[in-house]
Parts: sequence; C-alpha cells; structure tokens
Amino acid sequence: LFPEMAVSLWNNFLQTTKERLLQHRRVSLYNAAHGYEEELMKRKLQQFGGGSISLSKGDNGIGILTMNNLKLMNAFTGTMMLELQERVNELENWKDGKGLIICGAGNTFCSGSDLNVVKAISSPQGMNMCMFMQNTLTRLMRLPLISVALVQGKAIGGGAELTTACDFRLMTPGSEIRFVHKRMGLVPGWGGGARLVRIVGSGTALRLLSGAVKVDPDRALRLGLSEETLLSSDETRALEEAQAWLSQYTEGPTSVIRAMKKVVMAGRELPLEAALRTEKDVFGTLWGGPANLQALVRRPKHK
Amino acid sequence: LFPEMAVSLWNNFLQTTKERLLQHRRVSLYNAAHGYEEELMKRKLQQFGGGSISLSKGDNGIGILTMNNLKLMNAFTGTMMLELQERVNELENWKDGKGLIICGAGNTFCSGSDLNVVKAISSPQGMNMCMFMQNTLTRLMRLPLISVALVQGKAIGGGAELTTACDFRLMTPGSEIRFVHKRMGLVPGWGGGARLVRIVGSGTALRLLSGAVKVDPDRALRLGLSEETLLSSDETRALEEAQAWLSQYTEGPTSVIRAMKKVVMAGRELPLEAALRTEKDVFGTLWGGPANLQALVRRPKHK
Amino acid sequence: LFPEMAVSLWNNFLQTTKERLLQHRRVSLYNAAHGYEEELMKRKLQQFGGGSISLSKGDNGIGILTMNNLKLMNAFTGTMMLELQERVNELENWKDGKGLIICGAGNTFCSGSDLNVVKAISSPQGMNMCMFMQNTLTRLMRLPLISVALVQGKAIGGGAELTTACDFRLMTPGSEIRFVHKRMGLVPGWGGGARLVRIVGSGTALRLLSGAVKVDPDRALRLGLSEETLLSSDETRALEEAQAWLSQYTEGPTSVIRAMKKVVMAGRELPLEAALRTEKDVFGTLWGGPANLQALVRRPKHK
Repeated sequence: LFPEMAVSLWNNFLQTTKERLLQHRRVSLYNAAHGYEEELMKRKLQQFGGGSISLSKGDNGIGILTMNNLKLMNAFTGTMMLELQERVNELENWKDGKGLIICGAGNTFCSGSDLNVVKAISSPQGMNMCMFMQNTLTRLMRLPLISVALVQGKAIGGGAELTTACDFRLMTPGSEIRFVHKRMGLVPGWGGGARLVRIVGSGTALRLLSGAVKVDPDRALRLGLSEETLLSSDETRALEEAQAWLSQYTEGPTSVIRAMKKVVMAGRELPLEAALRTEKDVFGTLWGGPANLQALVRRPKHK
Repeated sequence: LFPEMAVSLWNNFLQTTKERLLQHRRVSLYNAAHGYEEELMKRKLQQFGGGSISLSKGDNGIGILTMNNLKLMNAFTGTMMLELQERVNELENWKDGKGLIICGAGNTFCSGSDLNVVKAISSPQGMNMCMFMQNTLTRLMRLPLISVALVQGKAIGGGAELTTACDFRLMTPGSEIRFVHKRMGLVPGWGGGARLVRIVGSGTALRLLSGAVKVDPDRALRLGLSEETLLSSDETRALEEAQAWLSQYTEGPTSVIRAMKKVVMAGRELPLEAALRTEKDVFGTLWGGPANLQALVRRPKHK
Repeated sequence: LFPEMAVSLWNNFLQTTKERLLQHRRVSLYNAAHGYEEELMKRKLQQFGGGSISLSKGDNGIGILTMNNLKLMNAFTGTMMLELQERVNELENWKDGKGLIICGAGNTFCSGSDLNVVKAISSPQGMNMCMFMQNTLTRLMRLPLISVALVQGKAIGGGAELTTACDFRLMTPGSEIRFVHKRMGLVPGWGGGARLVRIVGSGTALRLLSGAVKVDPDRALRLGLSEETLLSSDETRALEEAQAWLSQYTEGPTSVIRAMKKVVMAGRELPLEAALRTEKDVFGTLWGGPANLQALVRRPKHK
C-alpha cells in the first residue's frame, strides 16, 4: 500500500502545482503560513511614495509595462511595488493578451530598490518585502503571455532580477545587466538567483553573481542571457524593434499563443511526466476548438 | 515523525520512478486511472489503415526503424500508430540492442498525423490519441538504447515531436525540423513540447513553438537541436553516415552501453540525490561482471 | 484534506533537503538504511595505503586540496579515500573559507582508483566504496565555497568524476578529461554521470560517457565543461593563474560569498518554488548584517 499512497500524494501535489500554472490566478508563493503578513507590508510600502508603474494594453495583444521614477533610474519605491502588483492583477485578467514588454522610462531599465525604502525597513520587514516582491514576480513570470524585458541603459540589482522574470531579454547597444548585490553585502532576494540559474546554468549564474559582473550585450548574447542586441539605442525606436521582434511569436490566435506559453512553462517547472500530462491537458483545450477547426478547413493535408 | 514520513513517502515515489527507468517494461504514463481507454483507442485506430512501420535489427546491435507512408510524407495513419507501439514492444525485448536509428522512407522524415485520422476523431478520442502516442514515445525515449533521429527532408508537426524522443538528431543538408502546430491551431500533444524544453532550454523552445520556426541544419546545430549535419543528402549514404556516427557510441560490450544510457536517463529525469543512487545501482550491475573482469585483466594500471 | 496533506508532506521533504544544503553538515546521501556499512568500509580502506591528500588553507579564504600519489598518477588508494573524507570534514568546519582549488601533484590531476584496491574489493564491498565516495563528493560539492578543479595532465575515470563535484573546471594546455569507464567495463559510480548531465546536458554527457571521448581544453570550452584554458602548463604558474581567476569571485565579505554559493546551489538542486524560498532565507541571513550596513553607508544611492 505504501508506495501507492506515496505516488498518490505526489500526484496530488503535482496536480496543485499544475493548477497554479494553468489557472494563472493570484496563487501566491508566500502566505500567512510562511509568516508573511501581506496587509502589514502593504501599509508599510504605502508610506514610501514616488514614481509609477504604467501599463498600456495594445490591440495587437501586446502590453507595455513601464517603470517610471526618473530621478532614481527607475528604482522601486514602496508605492511602485504596490503598483506593480496591481498591474500584474490586471494582466492576469487580460483575456486578450498575448505578449508583454517591460521597459523603463528615460531610456534606462531599473536600478532595483529605492535605498530610502531599504534603509527605512527593518530586518523582519525586509523579509516581508522579499516575499511581497517574489509573490509578484512569480505571478508575472507565470502570466500566459510571452514576455520580454527590453533592457536599455542599466538593469542593476533588483532591476537585473526583474529581467529574469521575463521569458526573454533584448538589449540595446551600450546597455548592461549587472547583479551588483555583492557590493551591497547581499544576495538576490527577489528570486533573481533561482531564475538566473534556470536561464544560463548554475556555473554562469555563480560567476555573474559572485563576481558582480557587468554584462554587456555581446556577453549576454554569448551566455544566453539575451536573445538579441537591438540596432537602435533610441528609446522610441528600440521599443518599436522590441515589438517587431515579439510579434513574430505572438502572431496567431490568442488561445494558441497563450497555450504555447503554458506548455513551455510546464516544461520548465515540472518533472517530465507531470509536464507531459500538462501538455496533454493544454492540447485538450485547443483540440477541436475554433482555431483548430479553421486550420483543418484551410489546409487539408497533414498535422 | 512527520518529516521522516514525508521523506519515506518521497523515497518510495522515487523508487517507483527509478524502477520504471531501469526495467524498461511497458509501464505506461497513462492508464485507466487517467481516463485513458487503451482498448477502445486501439479499435478506433485500426479503422484508419495505410503505411507501415518496419524494424530491422542489425548484428551490430543497431536497430533501424523506418516510417513508410510515401504518399503522405510518412504521416502516421491509425495502423502506423499501432505498429509503432508493437515495434517499441519488440525493442524493449531486444536484449542485444545497443542503438537505434529512426528514419523515414522516400528520403523524408515524417509529417505528423494523417489528417484523415485527425478529422475523423472527435474531441475525447483526440485526448485518447494523445495519451496513446505519449505512452509509446515515452517508452521509446526510455529504451536502454542510444537513439538517433536521422532527419532527411522534413520533420514537421508530430514528426518534429518524434525527433525529440530520441537521444540525438542528425540532419542531412537541406532538411528541416519544424513545429508547425501553431498553424494548425494547436500546441504539441505527443510530448514534444516538454521534451524540447529539456533539449534546447525553455527560451529557445518557446521561440521555436510560438514562432513555428523552420529550423535548418545550421540553426539546429547552433541551438543544440542537432548534433551534426551529415555530408550526404542521398538516402542510402545518409543512413550509412548515421550508422557510422552512432557506432562511435555503441562500440563495446552490450551491458555497458545499455548501462550508460540508464545512467544518463536517470541524470536527466531524477532529482540529483535520486540520480546518484540510481547511478550507484547501475554501477552495481557491472562491477565484477564479465566486461569489468576482462578489462581488469587487460589493463592492470588505473581505473 | 488529501491535497493539503500531500503539499504539507512535500514541504517537509523540501525543508529537509534545504537544511542539508544550508547547514553543510555531515549529512550523508547513504546511511545504514541504504545497506551502507561505513565503519566496515573504513576498516577495509585502511588496509590499502599509499599517497596522501593535503589541504592548505590560505589567509585569502582560498583552500588548496592536493592529491598526491605520484607513481600512480594520483590514483586514489584506500587511505587517500579516507583522507579525502577528513579534508572535507575540515573544510565544512572552516568558517573563513570562500574558495577551493583541487589539483594533483606532479602536474597531473587524478587517474581514479588505484586498481590494486579495485581488484581486492569484492562485489558488495565495491558498492560500499561507491557509497563512501558519493557521500564524500556530495559533501564536497555542497561546501559553501566556490570550487575549481585545476586540470593539469590527465583527469581520467574517477579523476574525471571528481572534477564534476566542483563548481568550475580550468584546464592547462595539453591536459585532458576523459571518462574512460566504458573501457573498464563500467559506468561512473562516484556520481560523475549524474553530475555531468547537469553540467553539459544529457546529450553531451551521453556522448562523452558512451564514447569514452578524450576531451581536450578546446573541446571542453565549447561544451561548457571548462570555463577557461589557462596560459601556462607549468605546475606553479598554473596554480597562480587558477588562484587569480578564482579571486575574481571570492573577493568580498566571507558571509556574502558563501551565501552566493548557497543561493546557486539551491537553484540547481531544488524545484523553482523551493529554490525561491531558500533564496529568501539566505537573503535574510545578510539583510541588515554588517556587510550590508557598511555598504549602505558607503553608497547612498540604489540597491
């Protein structure tokens, strides 16, 4: 009986994880059971204002999320952290969304946390801030949208961590990604370490983190941290280039694009057998559906 | 007591997975508990005839599996799906096997499912077809043989998925691999998504799937999707080249080659500690065995 | 109730694994429950003497571990296996350590096991030897130190396996790494197979193992098995080069460097959510600590 029970428990666990991946609801990594006090944290963050996070949702299904806090190179104030959470809520409910570009105002990406917030938040609150940001970024990463961090200027510290919550990174000439945490006497805390290992492998991740290495566009390409170096470093043109790049992958029926992201997400987060079963379930949401039937009419030959 | 119980349950679960990997029996991903009705599916598939899957088992321990349905670019009919399952049964029982090459007749690989089958099978049956093919391809992937997909011509849709169930892909000049599912309003359903993520990483997988990207031999090499571009695109010569390539890795005692595949398979499917324990168990099947003793007599110096 | 119970058991399991990663104590992969008889094995190994494993701990926080058994190309005798375990104990207790270089005396790395030991140890004892070495190498791999295998001359068989227990490999011109196990009628047994899959991917691992491929520095670089080819093949200068290379990553407060290794280790061994939670916990050990506070005073701008 024992092994069957273990398998059954394990399957139940996988089911739960799978539902999180597929439902894209506000299921959080941390809740009260982890000693996380969300409401307390929100009240605290509310006290540190400045800057904003804006979201525009295009008719083409591509959203653009912009961090705006020019005088601090788009560092996150408390209210920006709260706004990011709200924007993620909004994206979870955007049924027509297919893609997302994250960028910074003033032609630079993001420099992490506003140090005024960091200095004002004492140790246990620091952990709550960590959990608040990890919850938000995990939900961002699991959106059923193909996401791109458009790195102009500098993505440093928490800004570098934020880029790893996207599916892809595109860099403009002269830009840099740098995990400077070591110089602040810290390690990543927004989940950037765990996610970086999955993007570039554990060896490269250890070098970038423990060396606080400045990664320019060429190096990022070689390491697989970036997909492409854009031609222009002009703010407007770079955004146009990023949109054109992303459009290659978002073109097509919304249901299909969102399903592709889910299949790949299951592939990267779940053990093989669970990923296979999830793929089958996602396939089942499309099989015989409108996009599939239209295609069968159009192209009468092979799958 | 609680943590010990959890560890014990987990160990039992791992034991089960390990046994699946090591025994290479007809342990299936899906059974009746998943709502999968195998016998019903088999009777349904039987109704859609045409084409064949042949297997020749060489004295050198290399098997050649050929998909043959020339008028549909080797698309899978219902009976071909049934025959593939039978050939996998046969390979599981082939105790002298060390390697396997999968290729298509008429100098092209495979174009997925025969659309006549696809169109005739309604939605719940579609899920059964998915589960039937995932069961077969998972067993194919876990054969204790070093397997190569020899990609000539086109490997598209389900054909592209099939290549990912092999350990390696070799491509002839001018050939292509293409996950065209998006254009059919679908995602992969034969497990090709989950397996592709493990071969090329989640970023590249997302690009290939959501862009329905045509991957030529050069690009496949760069992405790690293919190991080598063969010199010849002639059907016979390409097969000879593939056999020569594979022979580098199948040369040596059968028990040792099969054990190598098991060690690597455990390494890619299991968490680290479980993979280490499996490696130890596989090592134990060879230690002091005939191949090991002969080698010790022959080379009296170092391990 | 059932799913919650499964999640709770699973969380308890993860907690245990996490503690192993974070505490770096003598928690072993194998104990009596696995049929492993450590004391018996130690007495057996004691009978096969020769060679030594030395450790020097530098003021710069970099340790140098040297295998010394010149007449057998630094093959491991029984007492060397015992000494390796003692040196790992010592490193686990070295609170000032930040980095580790493993190298061989006489300008060659290591040729695996002394065949006199191998021949003298019968089958069940062979499994005990496997478990003894896997226990030691797993603890070596999980030290909170950034570790480098300095490969001069030959790293073959068990020597090749040993390199995979380090975070990085640096090779001198003319050196080689070769998993020769196939020629001995064996697979890796010290965990080198499972670890190699994690370093170079399962495809490359299968080629290197089943082909017993000789990997020179150029090939190692291309495959990601080595980080860099050093300029000098002189023993002393190569060690200086390796130290300079490693210093880039060990420079800075001890607590921060050790924490970086823990974050990356969690990222490579744990499922994503568990890795994220561990990152948060490691972050918590530094937040508001001395290195962090000093940095905040020094640089009043951004995280």
